Amino acid sequence: MQLGMVGLGRMGGNIVRRLLRAGHDCVVWDRDPAPGAALATEGARAVAGLAAMVASLDAPRTIWVMLPSGAATEDALREIGGLLSPGDVLIDGGNSMWKDSVRRGAEIRARGLHFLDIGTSGGVWGLARGYSLMIGGEEAVVRRLDPIFRALVPGKDAAGPTPGAEGRDPRAAEGYVHCGANGAGHFTKMIHNGIEYGMMQAMAEGLDILHDQGVVSASLADVTEGWRRGSVVASWLLDLTAQALAAEEDLGSYSGTVSDSGEGRWTVDAAVEQGVAAPVLAAALFARFTSRDEQRFSMKALSAMRKGFGGHLEPPKK
Amino acid sequence: MQLGMVGLGRMGGNIVRRLLRAGHDCVVWDRDPAPGAALATEGARAVAGLAAMVASLDAPRTIWVMLPSGAATEDALREIGGLLSPGDVLIDGGNSMWKDSVRRGAEIRARGLHFLDIGTSGGVWGLARGYSLMIGGEEAVVRRLDPIFRALVPGKDAAGPTPGAEGRDPRAAEGYVHCGANGAGHFTKMIHNGIEYGMMQAMAEGLDILHDQGVVSASLADVTEGWRRGSVVASWLLDLTAQALAAEEDLGSYSGTVSDSGEGRWTVDAAVEQGVAAPVLAAALFARFTSRDEQRFSMKALSAMRKGFGGHLEPPKK
Amino acid sequence: MQLGMVGLGRMGGNIVRRLLRAGHDCVVWDRDPAPGAALATEGARAVAGLAAMVASLDAPRTIWVMLPSGAATEDALREIGGLLSPGDVLIDGGNSMWKDSVRRGAEIRARGLHFLDIGTSGGVWGLARGYSLMIGGEEAVVRRLDPIFRALVPGKDAAGPTPGAEGRDPRAAEGYVHCGANGAGHFTKMIHNGIEYGMMQAMAEGLDILHDQGVVSASLADVTEGWRRGSVVASWLLDLTAQALAAEEDLGSYSGTVSDSGEGRWTVDAAVEQGVAAPVLAAALFARFTSRDEQRFSMKALSAMRKGFGGHLEPPKK
Amino acid sequence: MQLGMVGLGRMGGNIVRRLLRAGHDCVVWDRDPAPGAALATEGARAVAGLAAMVASLDAPRTIWVMLPSGAATEDALREIGGLLSPGDVLIDGGNSMWKDSVRRGAEIRARGLHFLDIGTSGGVWGLARGYSLMIGGEEAVVRRLDPIFRALVPGKDAAGPTPGAEGRDPRAAEGYVHCGANGAGHFTKMIHNGIEYGMMQAMAEGLDILHDQGVVSASLADVTEGWRRGSVVASWLLDLTAQALAAEEDLGSYSGTVSDSGEGRWTVDAAVEQGVAAPVLAAALFARFTSRDEQRFSMKALSAMRKGFGGHLEPPKK
Repeated sequence: MQLGMVGLGRMGGNIVRRLLRAGHDCVVWDRDPAPGAALATEGARAVAGLAAMVASLDAPRTIWVMLPSGAATEDALREIGGLLSPGDVLIDGGNSMWKDSVRRGAEIRARGLHFLDIGTSGGVWGLARGYSLMIGGEEAVVRRLDPIFRALVPGKDAAGPTPGAEGRDPRAAEGYVHCGANGAGHFTKMIHNGIEYGMMQAMAEGLDILHDQGVVSASLADVTEGWRRGSVVASWLLDLTAQALAAEEDLGSYSGTVSDSGEGRWTVDAAVEQGVAAPVLAAALFARFTSRDEQRFSMKALSAMRKGFGGHLEPPKK
Repeated sequence: MQLGMVGLGRMGGNIVRRLLRAGHDCVVWDRDPAPGAALATEGARAVAGLAAMVASLDAPRTIWVMLPSGAATEDALREIGGLLSPGDVLIDGGNSMWKDSVRRGAEIRARGLHFLDIGTSGGVWGLARGYSLMIGGEEAVVRRLDPIFRALVPGKDAAGPTPGAEGRDPRAAEGYVHCGANGAGHFTKMIHNGIEYGMMQAMAEGLDILHDQGVVSASLADVTEGWRRGSVVASWLLDLTAQALAAEEDLGSYSGTVSDSGEGRWTVDAAVEQGVAAPVLAAALFARFTSRDEQRFSMKALSAMRKGFGGHLEPPKK
Repeated sequence: MQLGMVGLGRMGGNIVRRLLRAGHDCVVWDRDPAPGAALATEGARAVAGLAAMVASLDAPRTIWVMLPSGAATEDALREIGGLLSPGDVLIDGGNSMWKDSVRRGAEIRARGLHFLDIGTSGGVWGLARGYSLMIGGEEAVVRRLDPIFRALVPGKDAAGPTPGAEGRDPRAAEGYVHCGANGAGHFTKMIHNGIEYGMMQAMAEGLDILHDQGVVSASLADVTEGWRRGSVVASWLLDLTAQALAAEEDLGSYSGTVSDSGEGRWTVDAAVEQGVAAPVLAAALFARFTSRDEQRFSMKALSAMRKGFGGHLEPPKK
Repeated sequence: MQLGMVGLGRMGGNIVRRLLRAGHDCVVWDRDPAPGAALATEGARAVAGLAAMVASLDAPRTIWVMLPSGAATEDALREIGGLLSPGDVLIDGGNSMWKDSVRRGAEIRARGLHFLDIGTSGGVWGLARGYSLMIGGEEAVVRRLDPIFRALVPGKDAAGPTPGAEGRDPRAAEGYVHCGANGAGHFTKMIHNGIEYGMMQAMAEGLDILHDQGVVSASLADVTEGWRRGSVVASWLLDLTAQALAAEEDLGSYSGTVSDSGEGRWTVDAAVEQGVAAPVLAAALFARFTSRDEQRFSMKALSAMRKGFGGHLEPPKK
């Protein structure tokens, strides 16, 4: 099939590569001409702009936008929407806030176009392993683009069958889920990332305790390698942790300053909005906030109170 | 090799089965004669008591105790220790507190015996998948029992290789780790379970939010199935969750009352003792406490304060 | 001074009473005629509707709306705004979301009126003790209404002087703060309530542990009474807790189902939006969510996983 | 009455001063002779050692040990215990672990002596305001030392009466509580400090959000001053916070590195041991751990995972 890709960063570029390898016809564009030129050597058709992209695609067109969430995505969707014709499909494969996708879906459909919000997980490994796709939008459109999605996902053999899941939507077992109407894809991706934050933090805290004791003398690299087979914590995150520790036992090259993207925050917002207790997901988010801020006002306030009632003077930082 | 197994519950019985299938010679005993009789039909030698077990094994003997932690394990180790001869090996494969294993190791070694504390993960799936073993004790003893451990672990092919781990202790990539001296095995298992609690709670909170909204219409069974391939949260716990949801989308047969074993508590104690922040592991533990207690005094105290300052009367429970 | 009060519930009615006792002239209205009739016997002028209220007040008028946040407040502000004349002042003394107050302030000022958003703390005790007021809006308007505010606050003698605060805005030491432009009053009140949630939960958890042990035999009523003098936790919340425990040591008449108003949620949202770690405020909020929901899906998911990997069946609820 | 005081630091010295002002006869000793010499100018009898102290007191003697918990207290109690005679009273007024006080009480009583474990709150303000005392030990001994305790506590007038508490133990309303047998005093003090940690952290988090926004333009000094009268968060900790902010709005002189004493940790241990959910008390403790440790291994582990799956490189610290 034909697909236009706008935004050729780490994610967009590799999605194109995986599609090219499956024989799809990709028209690509990025503000920076370099990644498009590189992809052209791998079989993509690089164009000079959005109008050229639209002109290069046969109707009904499919254009996938893979840009940072927020203004970049908003602007691109608006501009491309103005160039497309009824029946064409716009895809936002980035990490947009799901409420934006609900709104954008309504706006885009009002113009006779179709919209899919696709949460895309897989990171730098997606090219080799395939991507997990969480899709919001109309079923007919999802069906039409099935060849694209099948080329992107890891496929059935990437994991064993789930007993009891026979007879369910076979697309889930390939690696992509039609989650519902617009917004559902990004909502599901948001929850996925919220869970990811919590699982990462659980692993990290356990390793921190393990790292800081006098009993276990095996390397953390060996301990995590050992857990990869047969244990309850076996997971892809554990695989990656074992790799990092094999390369560097003390992780000394990492600053310990951890970014957070929107999804972790939106997950906590969703929990608060729905009245669902999410102490682990919130704690995982707050740990990242704290990691970035050495001189927190809250801690100064504690010190001030302690000096106030006890005359305590705090020690300097370790 | 020969091995005596004391305690033939779900874990002990299946460990014996896996050893029998690998051709080892197992002498078994349990307070309840039924599981021993069953194992006898699969090739084990069932004996009538501990003295008979010791008599049935050639020196140097190896006896694995697989009993509930606490008094049951303490008593069994003492009694068997009194029957063994110098050079024999006592194994505690249960979920003992690591400080107990440090102490017991010293006591047992003082009698000329050897002691291994082995954290054993794998649950009801261990028979088919193999067990992850975390071992504390003397290296020479661990080496001597290598055939036993190799029969129990999943083995190298159960997961792909870890890039960068070439040249490391090959036992870890088979599925067992010699963690250090006595106590190190159970310490590592404690941390494993602490991480497990946190990962489970992260997954559970995410599903709770997903369950309780109006956007995603796909079944949770399909969503979790979709995450099994290519996503960052891919894990054995996700596999099990997808199975449970495939069987019963609303999990209505579960009470939502969640037990905790000692390890989750000890992990938080260890964090507190070492001054390591473990907000996720603690939150996961507290969520279990709360699940078991409908009428918490803390919540009554809140209601009393609210009535005190605002005249607020609380609504009844949902 | 003259003041119109719309909404004569627990808060609105007592604010009027306190103003009447200070000699102010209050025109009152509520959908339900009963509280207005009662206040009329105490010196208020009860009117039959909003138009009558506006007609009964001399320009420039001041009308205080004390209604549940959300639609009730929004509708009342709109309707009254349509009846007022340039220079008149509208006050929202309820628990509105601060972003609504920013928006409403702009809308109301655009019509030539003035707007104050006033966070009001004090609950059922406000009539006797006075209210703590957190005010957002124009300084000139706040100055003009100073006699109203002075009648409502506890006044300087309600607490000792703060060393070092000489020369600061004397209004704060009376009990009211001009927090900034519109929205600042409700933002400050939101934070106040967020802190309140955390302090209450801290007290409640401590008492829960104290309640559930075998060492301390003194009554919780005596323990909390003892803490009221000289201890670091001395606070109004402690005073109220000691009262509740003196009345009923086991708090058995409380359901333990705890409501939350918007401010606790908005505080966590604000923390997330600003990237400030607020683990205690979030945990306090989540504890309330949990108290209301016996059959949480998250806990069922944990049970399902535990059954999946370990064959564990959970015990029934206590 | 007569009292011997061992340990003349901030707490011990001021307790002696308060007793002297009430006309009691204090014999004092400290490893460092300076504070004893200073107290001698205020009426105390400074002695050269423990034996001299015992010789200076009439039987039945009362000796109060006010030393750091742990070895210093353990050693002093043993040494003094060896010098005393049956019927004499040993007091540990420090912050000992309550299980130590249970054990020490049994040991000391076995020698025919009496033991009181007294949790003492009040800090540097205790001299002027009085101390809150939480006492474990025999009722007859507590009764005998009533004049000492009455001289130390703030007294009835330091707070208003609690409605409904008429007829209860009048000592609580003076400021001291006989909490139960040995250990009960320090258990109660432990819970007090656990609550203190939670309340402080609640206040600190709220101020952190308030500090970091663009809506409220009033100074934090004025906001907290305003809350001191009539609000729900009115408390001694708020008084101290308002003082600190009046002196220095940005608290810039504080490092934000916050110590924790044993009680905060033991409170979490007690919650875990009893199966009581204490998310706020644990979060408050962990916030202090984190404040002291810039380069947490847990955060490096997160960064390593993020680089692993997404190629993400973290930004440097703010």
